[in-house]
Amino acid sequence: MRRPGFSRRSFTSGAAVAALVPTGLTAAHAAAPAGRSAAAPAQVRRFTMYAENLPNGQLGYGLEPGEARIPGPLLEMYEGDTLQIDLVNNADVAVSLHVHGVDYAIDSDGTRMTDSIVEPGESRLYTWNSHAPGRRDDGTVIAGSAGYWNYHDHVVGTDHGTGGLQRGLYGPLVVRRRGDILPDHQYTIVFNDMTINNRSGADAPNFTAKLGERCEFIVITHGEFYHTFHVHGHRWADNRTGYLVDENDSSRVIDNKICGPGDSFGFQVVAGEGVGPGHWMYHCHVQSHSDMGMAGLFTVTRADGTVPGGPPDHGGGGHGGGDGGGHHPHH
Amino acid sequence: MRRPGFSRRSFTSGAAVAALVPTGLTAAHAAAPAGRSAAAPAQVRRFTMYAENLPNGQLGYGLEPGEARIPGPLLEMYEGDTLQIDLVNNADVAVSLHVHGVDYAIDSDGTRMTDSIVEPGESRLYTWNSHAPGRRDDGTVIAGSAGYWNYHDHVVGTDHGTGGLQRGLYGPLVVRRRGDILPDHQYTIVFNDMTINNRSGADAPNFTAKLGERCEFIVITHGEFYHTFHVHGHRWADNRTGYLVDENDSSRVIDNKICGPGDSFGFQVVAGEGVGPGHWMYHCHVQSHSDMGMAGLFTVTRADGTVPGGPPDHGGGGHGGGDGGGHHPHH
Amino acid sequence: MRRPGFSRRSFTSGAAVAALVPTGLTAAHAAAPAGRSAAAPAQVRRFTMYAENLPNGQLGYGLEPGEARIPGPLLEMYEGDTLQIDLVNNADVAVSLHVHGVDYAIDSDGTRMTDSIVEPGESRLYTWNSHAPGRRDDGTVIAGSAGYWNYHDHVVGTDHGTGGLQRGLYGPLVVRRRGDILPDHQYTIVFNDMTINNRSGADAPNFTAKLGERCEFIVITHGEFYHTFHVHGHRWADNRTGYLVDENDSSRVIDNKICGPGDSFGFQVVAGEGVGPGHWMYHCHVQSHSDMGMAGLFTVTRADGTVPGGPPDHGGGGHGGGDGGGHHPHH
Repeated sequence: MRRPGFSRRSFTSGAAVAALVPTGLTAAHAAAPAGRSAAAPAQVRRFTMYAENLPNGQLGYGLEPGEARIPGPLLEMYEGDTLQIDLVNNADVAVSLHVHGVDYAIDSDGTRMTDSIVEPGESRLYTWNSHAPGRRDDGTVIAGSAGYWNYHDHVVGTDHGTGGLQRGLYGPLVVRRRGDILPDHQYTIVFNDMTINNRSGADAPNFTAKLGERCEFIVITHGEFYHTFHVHGHRWADNRTGYLVDENDSSRVIDNKICGPGDSFGFQVVAGEGVGPGHWMYHCHVQSHSDMGMAGLFTVTRADGTVPGGPPDHGGGGHGGGDGGGHHPHH
Repeated sequence: MRRPGFSRRSFTSGAAVAALVPTGLTAAHAAAPAGRSAAAPAQVRRFTMYAENLPNGQLGYGLEPGEARIPGPLLEMYEGDTLQIDLVNNADVAVSLHVHGVDYAIDSDGTRMTDSIVEPGESRLYTWNSHAPGRRDDGTVIAGSAGYWNYHDHVVGTDHGTGGLQRGLYGPLVVRRRGDILPDHQYTIVFNDMTINNRSGADAPNFTAKLGERCEFIVITHGEFYHTFHVHGHRWADNRTGYLVDENDSSRVIDNKICGPGDSFGFQVVAGEGVGPGHWMYHCHVQSHSDMGMAGLFTVTRADGTVPGGPPDHGGGGHGGGDGGGHHPHH
Repeated sequence: MRRPGFSRRSFTSGAAVAALVPTGLTAAHAAAPAGRSAAAPAQVRRFTMYAENLPNGQLGYGLEPGEARIPGPLLEMYEGDTLQIDLVNNADVAVSLHVHGVDYAIDSDGTRMTDSIVEPGESRLYTWNSHAPGRRDDGTVIAGSAGYWNYHDHVVGTDHGTGGLQRGLYGPLVVRRRGDILPDHQYTIVFNDMTINNRSGADAPNFTAKLGERCEFIVITHGEFYHTFHVHGHRWADNRTGYLVDENDSSRVIDNKICGPGDSFGFQVVAGEGVGPGHWMYHCHVQSHSDMGMAGLFTVTRADGTVPGGPPDHGGGGHGGGDGGGHHPHH
């Protein structure tokens, strides 16, 4: 299955176009990806998402029937692009799609109050626009849409989607500015109540990269609790992109960040840079949360795939949330 | 009643001077407002605030006897200005005035320890100074006072004012830098324990603006809990002003922000920009908090005052906290 | 006892070298401090830390046997320096040393999983490297190591060191960039569960400076709870250094900051600048936390050591955490 996103790997392989075009996209919309050109035209991409029941009372979003996962698919766009998403509700409760960060008219709000939800067996078009930075007529700056955002249900259980979030109806959205650095790998980590991506303990997601690969972390929080995201041996800039574009940027460099429900941020690290390969923990730094299983591994391998010290008990193979997982393979 | 502040609307109307001069200010202090001129002289403004008992055991600050409200009056100043506030305590408990962000001598601290509180029936002068950015003799930078700050009681109930805050003794203070953009509307949102401005549910404050108007949100947190402030369809820069002054600013653009007691921040949005009119929710994104009523509406109307989809059940008329409320009318 | 750090005072006194060289450092490593020169060579410094049992079930790190304190010693380095730390475990449980922010190979991770912990009676070398900002071959920026970081145990009680943190095994690490402003005083404040530096109430640490002295606050959070750090009459920039390097920096200036376990930040203030001498409170602004004793004093004296209003009940002499305390004297 292809995903509606892009990565540096995609752009440097012959599969670039395919990687950008979600399944279900008609030929008319399958324009070539814009790449890094500042002059690239904005794209309008239309595709279908499916909300489905999953085992154990969970719910998920997917890009094909029967393919719903938690978290939902990683959606990506460049500033200026538009996503037109037909949400088909194959679940047994009314669901919706509410998104952070991008532009949408009130009828794409995804709330009961605005009558923009989807009953079981029905579908609805949600349109998300985005824009590059600009200037208003009065000379003031319009901030661009670029950011590490998230989307989620806003109606299951309560009018704020508390049940939908608990059961798994959430996913990441990345909006890039032309010229932003593209990663080799992307990992989605959602601190959702006391879970990571609705998993915990030995089942928490692990991620694997080779030494020197550029890895993008997309960190989202949902639910009831605050958390502090921490990763061992790696750090990032606390700004829009998570990396510095010049030496004069006064952003704080951090490796630990407090976040609360609805927050999302992202950053890129070069795997093992300055520290080498190893099984590097990432975890919530709230002590009881990590002790109860909000922890996983960011495994950095040597070029030959080996790791000093050997594999830890709970494996470094990676599953869930990122391109080590089952539903975001690179083709 | 006039308020000791300013907005773009004030400056573009003949009522500019009046809008800047609080009731109780003597003629000698009623200098014309400085406007946007960088060379404008600093002002010293003296006025009276009243602490009063309110129904249901609440307490409030006001600018006239019998006019106390929750939150207290929006106070504003330019960097370099001084506010001299005679706090008259008409309540039945000792109260005080502690402020964040600006300069004050220890006898304006508002704490019991520094003997700067006010017994019932008495009054006390609190002096708040501010300053523009500058340089010390050694060349290091002195940060200016500009910011979205807050003031509150520091003595009712406990020596940290826990009872005063619970009962309503808090308000916003905005310090502007010369050249900062002035808004058309200002909305104060205080997440105080599980309330917004000591209200919740159907009584939570709503705000209304016309499409294209510049709206300033002043967001303050008090009490016991952390919250995440979220508004639908609009976003801001996570920096001093909440907007970008140039395209090189690497600040993260967000629409959701974690905050805790004592924190305050502010930002400006252009109502409905890129998204159009509608009843846009704002709420705490901690799920149980929004479900229990920490949510209101930011209604953006068409030029003729209508809103697509019609008014929701709990109205879009606006009450409390902002210039849709009863105590901050523009004259 | 000398500490492995530096301050402006150190650099302007004849004791500069001594102040920079931790006890236990061999002569071969005792190079002169680099001072502010950008061309200064990187230093490699090797010294010994001791983990020890303390009264009441507490544990601490120290630079000499029998000298363990809570928090552990303030460690400092310039970007490019290396610290080689022989951790001798004189406590009765296995302990470790896990550090934030700097570079270390996986065998210095300080976790059980990576087999980098220290059994009672044994010792282990932990190596922390750091680096200045730079550019990769592809032109992207490598952020420097400068920051207000922290180190702590990662194994006592649980595999995340929950017991070690509760009992006192934590301390501050400051990494400076060449050219960063050096302070006259340094204060470490660790919000650890409901304590400050494992103390609370009348025993909470106080700090004292003379009017005009440059004071560096290093604020760390550990344990289970979120907090909001607030100091009266002083404020800072929410960026890497806590101060502005030029007037164009759009960083928010604040006096209150939410933080969670694992977070650390720092800033410098000029004692009493614009506000004068006094007993200025600092405290957690979560109301129940301050009411239960998470509060202390930052006392700013006149040149003659006096303070307006006289000493408060719980003294302004200062103890714990900073250079007013017993274990970080300037020589």
